[in-house]
Amino acid sequence: MDFKHSDKALHWQERVTRFLDDKVLPRAADYWAEVHADHTIQPRTMEALKAEARDAGLWNMFLPGEHGTGLSNLEYAPLAEAMGRAGLWTPEVFNCNAPDTGNMEVLHMYGNPAQQERWMKPLMAGEIRSAFLMTEPAVASSDATNIQTSIVREGDEYVINGRKWWSTNMGHPNVAISIVMGKTDTEAATHAQQSQVLVPTDTPGFRVERMLTVFGYDERPIGHAEVVLDNVRVPVENLIAGEGRGFEIAQGRLGPGRIHHCMRVIGAAEKALELMCERLLNRTAFRKTLSEHSVWEQRVGEARTNIEMCRLMVLKAAWMMDNGGAKNAKSEIAQIKVAAPKMALQIIDDAIQAFGGAGVSADTPLAEMYATVRTLRLADGPDEVHNRTIARLEYAKHGGRPVR
Amino acid sequence: MDFKHSDKALHWQERVTRFLDDKVLPRAADYWAEVHADHTIQPRTMEALKAEARDAGLWNMFLPGEHGTGLSNLEYAPLAEAMGRAGLWTPEVFNCNAPDTGNMEVLHMYGNPAQQERWMKPLMAGEIRSAFLMTEPAVASSDATNIQTSIVREGDEYVINGRKWWSTNMGHPNVAISIVMGKTDTEAATHAQQSQVLVPTDTPGFRVERMLTVFGYDERPIGHAEVVLDNVRVPVENLIAGEGRGFEIAQGRLGPGRIHHCMRVIGAAEKALELMCERLLNRTAFRKTLSEHSVWEQRVGEARTNIEMCRLMVLKAAWMMDNGGAKNAKSEIAQIKVAAPKMALQIIDDAIQAFGGAGVSADTPLAEMYATVRTLRLADGPDEVHNRTIARLEYAKHGGRPVR
Amino acid sequence: MDFKHSDKALHWQERVTRFLDDKVLPRAADYWAEVHADHTIQPRTMEALKAEARDAGLWNMFLPGEHGTGLSNLEYAPLAEAMGRAGLWTPEVFNCNAPDTGNMEVLHMYGNPAQQERWMKPLMAGEIRSAFLMTEPAVASSDATNIQTSIVREGDEYVINGRKWWSTNMGHPNVAISIVMGKTDTEAATHAQQSQVLVPTDTPGFRVERMLTVFGYDERPIGHAEVVLDNVRVPVENLIAGEGRGFEIAQGRLGPGRIHHCMRVIGAAEKALELMCERLLNRTAFRKTLSEHSVWEQRVGEARTNIEMCRLMVLKAAWMMDNGGAKNAKSEIAQIKVAAPKMALQIIDDAIQAFGGAGVSADTPLAEMYATVRTLRLADGPDEVHNRTIARLEYAKHGGRPVR
Amino acid sequence: MDFKHSDKALHWQERVTRFLDDKVLPRAADYWAEVHADHTIQPRTMEALKAEARDAGLWNMFLPGEHGTGLSNLEYAPLAEAMGRAGLWTPEVFNCNAPDTGNMEVLHMYGNPAQQERWMKPLMAGEIRSAFLMTEPAVASSDATNIQTSIVREGDEYVINGRKWWSTNMGHPNVAISIVMGKTDTEAATHAQQSQVLVPTDTPGFRVERMLTVFGYDERPIGHAEVVLDNVRVPVENLIAGEGRGFEIAQGRLGPGRIHHCMRVIGAAEKALELMCERLLNRTAFRKTLSEHSVWEQRVGEARTNIEMCRLMVLKAAWMMDNGGAKNAKSEIAQIKVAAPKMALQIIDDAIQAFGGAGVSADTPLAEMYATVRTLRLADGPDEVHNRTIARLEYAKHGGRPVR
Repeated sequence: MDFKHSDKALHWQERVTRFLDDKVLPRAADYWAEVHADHTIQPRTMEALKAEARDAGLWNMFLPGEHGTGLSNLEYAPLAEAMGRAGLWTPEVFNCNAPDTGNMEVLHMYGNPAQQERWMKPLMAGEIRSAFLMTEPAVASSDATNIQTSIVREGDEYVINGRKWWSTNMGHPNVAISIVMGKTDTEAATHAQQSQVLVPTDTPGFRVERMLTVFGYDERPIGHAEVVLDNVRVPVENLIAGEGRGFEIAQGRLGPGRIHHCMRVIGAAEKALELMCERLLNRTAFRKTLSEHSVWEQRVGEARTNIEMCRLMVLKAAWMMDNGGAKNAKSEIAQIKVAAPKMALQIIDDAIQAFGGAGVSADTPLAEMYATVRTLRLADGPDEVHNRTIARLEYAKHGGRPVR
Repeated sequence: MDFKHSDKALHWQERVTRFLDDKVLPRAADYWAEVHADHTIQPRTMEALKAEARDAGLWNMFLPGEHGTGLSNLEYAPLAEAMGRAGLWTPEVFNCNAPDTGNMEVLHMYGNPAQQERWMKPLMAGEIRSAFLMTEPAVASSDATNIQTSIVREGDEYVINGRKWWSTNMGHPNVAISIVMGKTDTEAATHAQQSQVLVPTDTPGFRVERMLTVFGYDERPIGHAEVVLDNVRVPVENLIAGEGRGFEIAQGRLGPGRIHHCMRVIGAAEKALELMCERLLNRTAFRKTLSEHSVWEQRVGEARTNIEMCRLMVLKAAWMMDNGGAKNAKSEIAQIKVAAPKMALQIIDDAIQAFGGAGVSADTPLAEMYATVRTLRLADGPDEVHNRTIARLEYAKHGGRPVR
Repeated sequence: MDFKHSDKALHWQERVTRFLDDKVLPRAADYWAEVHADHTIQPRTMEALKAEARDAGLWNMFLPGEHGTGLSNLEYAPLAEAMGRAGLWTPEVFNCNAPDTGNMEVLHMYGNPAQQERWMKPLMAGEIRSAFLMTEPAVASSDATNIQTSIVREGDEYVINGRKWWSTNMGHPNVAISIVMGKTDTEAATHAQQSQVLVPTDTPGFRVERMLTVFGYDERPIGHAEVVLDNVRVPVENLIAGEGRGFEIAQGRLGPGRIHHCMRVIGAAEKALELMCERLLNRTAFRKTLSEHSVWEQRVGEARTNIEMCRLMVLKAAWMMDNGGAKNAKSEIAQIKVAAPKMALQIIDDAIQAFGGAGVSADTPLAEMYATVRTLRLADGPDEVHNRTIARLEYAKHGGRPVR
Repeated sequence: MDFKHSDKALHWQERVTRFLDDKVLPRAADYWAEVHADHTIQPRTMEALKAEARDAGLWNMFLPGEHGTGLSNLEYAPLAEAMGRAGLWTPEVFNCNAPDTGNMEVLHMYGNPAQQERWMKPLMAGEIRSAFLMTEPAVASSDATNIQTSIVREGDEYVINGRKWWSTNMGHPNVAISIVMGKTDTEAATHAQQSQVLVPTDTPGFRVERMLTVFGYDERPIGHAEVVLDNVRVPVENLIAGEGRGFEIAQGRLGPGRIHHCMRVIGAAEKALELMCERLLNRTAFRKTLSEHSVWEQRVGEARTNIEMCRLMVLKAAWMMDNGGAKNAKSEIAQIKVAAPKMALQIIDDAIQAFGGAGVSADTPLAEMYATVRTLRLADGPDEVHNRTIARLEYAKHGGRPVR
């Protein structure tokens, strides 16, 4: 047991952190100015930063194996944290943003050579963006068996009908492809009913119904959409892996994805704590700085403790995935999925309280951070479902019925 | 001791509730459509509803004494709750929205006849809107002695310099007057340094620097502004009550204002609980409705309990103010100021969790409700300052030094 | 609506408080010295105080109607609070301690004249003590349908077999009678299977198996026992009200009983807050008193707020019972049952923290108070069951299936 | 970074766990029977188990370096956890119980050869027991500068006067020696005023005033005492390390000691979770097992998560101490000192709730576990002081004044 990162990992951390400090953060204001001027076009600042990151070799670091930089989940985790600390808009700079990461992983693991050539290649080059269409407004999608979108084979085509939402990246000017989850066989065994199909976003019948807001934030140019699939037809070659393997593919993508999310969240929590400490040291009330009021000592003390504990947990989950796969780390992944956002929300909320009016407005990143992290208690399944998973694995140790 | 509202109070509750159900809520969509089309103009729907409410005698109910409807704080409280439940945009329909209410009260209690004629009359008629400029970005304004805006007499004029923010109503197309708090004498005893002056919003040097957002919500046509006062000159007749009485006036306005806020918050919590129950009864996961999952029983049980307890506390505080004044109810007012928003935030957050993606988006009122209520843990002093007040009153019972 | 107690109620409060201050508290040390010397005999101090209380007319105040003092639940509640504040051993002084109170109520409402003469009379005189045997170790007794004790009629006798525990008062030297709940007809409708029977504690086959401790506290001379009923035979005349009415009787007793418990708990919380404030004002760390450390301001502020809110809730529940009966106040009674102990435990725990080592030891009453109040989250049904009740009543407002 | 224990560590874990399972737990009932029969004598079962453990080489594992088994803190931590899981009485079996461990460490690091021969040797052999007399009832001892006990040199002797409490082991029949902290020079710099002196417990003037209880539990044969030192005289040779070094020695002992405590607490939490799961799977209410009620899924999920996070944190703190010393791990040690007991108390409390009456009684170990762990939020400094330490280290990163 050793709590020190490897030299390789430290080296990567140093490179990414330096790039963020030297190249990315100085251009944050430019990026946001472009977004506020027109959030329907891709900011030129982003494309410039992407080019620099790619030239610097800081590109696709999330992807294990030869296609990326060959980093393990454990080695990648601190890089995701650094991005989360720099701002939740920065992962795109490194082509490391969700859901493109998950989609590239799926194509990497389950795509055939033609699919990889056609879609994975431009995604890995950062030339196009992609969406993952799973969640549906009409049903509790955390119970994946509820999904209603139908994928029916007619001749050489699949005909897709359904309604999806929270389809991230659908506001992106460069979005070109989506992976759609739906049922090819409603008569099959519960977990063999679903399939995943590649659907170009310009296919007839594929329609963005509206963009969604998060606590008042329109998150474009990324954005989350409600999408209607109305007799959308794609060639059967667009099927990924095989009919009935949709659930299996979905499970596979969630492990690393959750770890990435959690590490970014930990970075966000670090940022909030940093801002909070600076505020407390520089604000005076009742003749002493806020930092000297002991109520804040308790909050800062707990904030530091909770960040440290969550970070260790995420790193351990990453290490377990590297040494045995996601199935091996099922409970641990569920644990961080619940614990990290909860931890971060408390710290961000405390930081808001320390800042007063500046905390709820756009003068600090805190309110938007809160909104984004709040959605992570819901995205990829609500807390309740993950705690259920953990509990049932725990019960199984004591004779409770096994969990699939 | 009697927990039943008087017949008079029940009658008013019935009238206001019926008006909200029959007249206001059916036009909510119209109101919001106008706001979304152009949030810089006053929606015609609002003016139409105001006219109806006034005709129905449901007008200025917040104001005790002969100028309003003669309701006590205890009698008014459930009306504020009903408005909070209907939506935080509805109090304006009844001319019962902050900060106009507080400003009218100040003019009612401290204004001279000329000031009442010039400003209170059109405010009470709903013809103009007003702002209260107290909080400053540069200092912890919860410690009122920190306020830096200067009000210097030069001949027959006061010259005002300062920077204020969170000046609610400054986005309103009809805003015409503001009450500005500042220091007329920095050498006086701590609580006699400040004064309040009437400043028309079109006075030269009075400048809206920018509008603020709350989480991602721009709350116009009401809106909160940052305002710069740059050598603003007003005649000395605009002074309210007398030099050095600013702190006293500010204290006076906070009692009823906090009770109004808290009752609206309780109404919002009721609405959130209502929505949550409906969702739980109508959503299925893992083969039963969410309402049948016992974790939700615990949350709903606690929600109901906490609403009931907070409501009783607000009603008691209102009753104490009616029977002995705000000074008499100092601890109780501080108690509800902290307890009500905290209670409501938990319930709204649980409701968001029950709704999933719909909860954080604009498909439910929950996310905006959360943002608004979150600001109430800061507005009129943060929780920490109110708990300090309560604690020091408590300590005083055991020999701690007296609280002013 | 009026938050002022009636003159009558205030008069009683004044009498009871004065008696506690003048007569009871000065003898607390004597009482405990006797208990520590031998907890199997009734302390003479208690009997002396009982005689004085009875002479002073402060006796059986819990009982509504002509048998007691004619106080309503609303009027009695503050008296129970005063006893709780004075110490959880003091209700016996006034013959107002559980479970004797509940048993007297049951005999008062459901007993026939012979039963009243034989058992209620000496109970009301404080000459004997009684137990209520409901909870069973083998089943979740909060779901009353689980109860397994059998009551089988054989000729003119009932034969009772079963195992009960947490039978309070079974350590009392004066205990003479118990009310036993069990099933007379396992074939009847769910809520008509149970009956309640009077069983003298010296009946052959009635055996105290052992005394139970609560967090290390042996609570004798009151005490809680595990009792075995082994072919216990009583005459059929000992049946209360009628076969199959056990559930109905049990429901009836719980309303007032819970209010009494909750008011005593509120008194205990007041005592803990009082002790905490004194400690904070008199203990110095890091060159200032603990009261000047702002973390304690937050805790004291919240403590005061939560006590006030819970007290109002209990008073309202009492008022509702007085004006419509326990069934009418089903949700409110469940609410306080959960809220009051939770509130008190937090305050007691904070007070323990303020006292340090003195808090967990016998140098303050806090640790024992904590232990006793902790049991109230379980006794008469765990929190979870009461929250379930509240939630289902809430769901019913929105079309959920009705609650019986 | 590697989350796998070394083979050496795993081997020791296996040995200790097997010894606990095979030798210790089967004799738990014997041990407690002896204690309940007479808690003033050392149970023969304990001495027998100690002899077996010593023969098995499972002895003094806590002590780093050649005197013990040569285990690092990181390697020892899981052994402490295993003991905590087996029961808080089991560390003595392995001569690994506080405060003997800390006292042996002090003698190991600061004692001179004569002191080591006279006291450390029999302590390491398990022949005698020892106490550490630091905390005083009259002052907030968490601020060590408050300590009032005086140690005055007169000729070749030190004369000690003071009053100490929570002196653990003072109920032990074998206690022979104590280390007393007091002031040798009240004029010296704040942290150079104190010294530590060896005081045999049979020295004239050394008097056990009384034994203390913890939530009703008399914890003898170990026990915590209040001790009066009334003109106690010891030879100057009994001084440890040097005058004025008391604070330094105290700091040194706290690092490992806190880690041991925390690991035992984690073991206790594991035990509570284990018991809780078994209960939930085997108890039925409302026609399904408690484990199927989703409220328990949430609690079990959070319990598992919080245990995992705390354990990682303790292991990291241990690793940091092994690689840089306690000063290096100042924040981390403070973090676990607060986090571990808080985590465990929640889980134990939930387990109590799952067990109902059995949870608060002696039928499960839960209530006593709760009491013991509750004291750890106070012992070695209350949570508030540790959070203060963490916060000030955090502030220092942002320009706050340095922490000594």
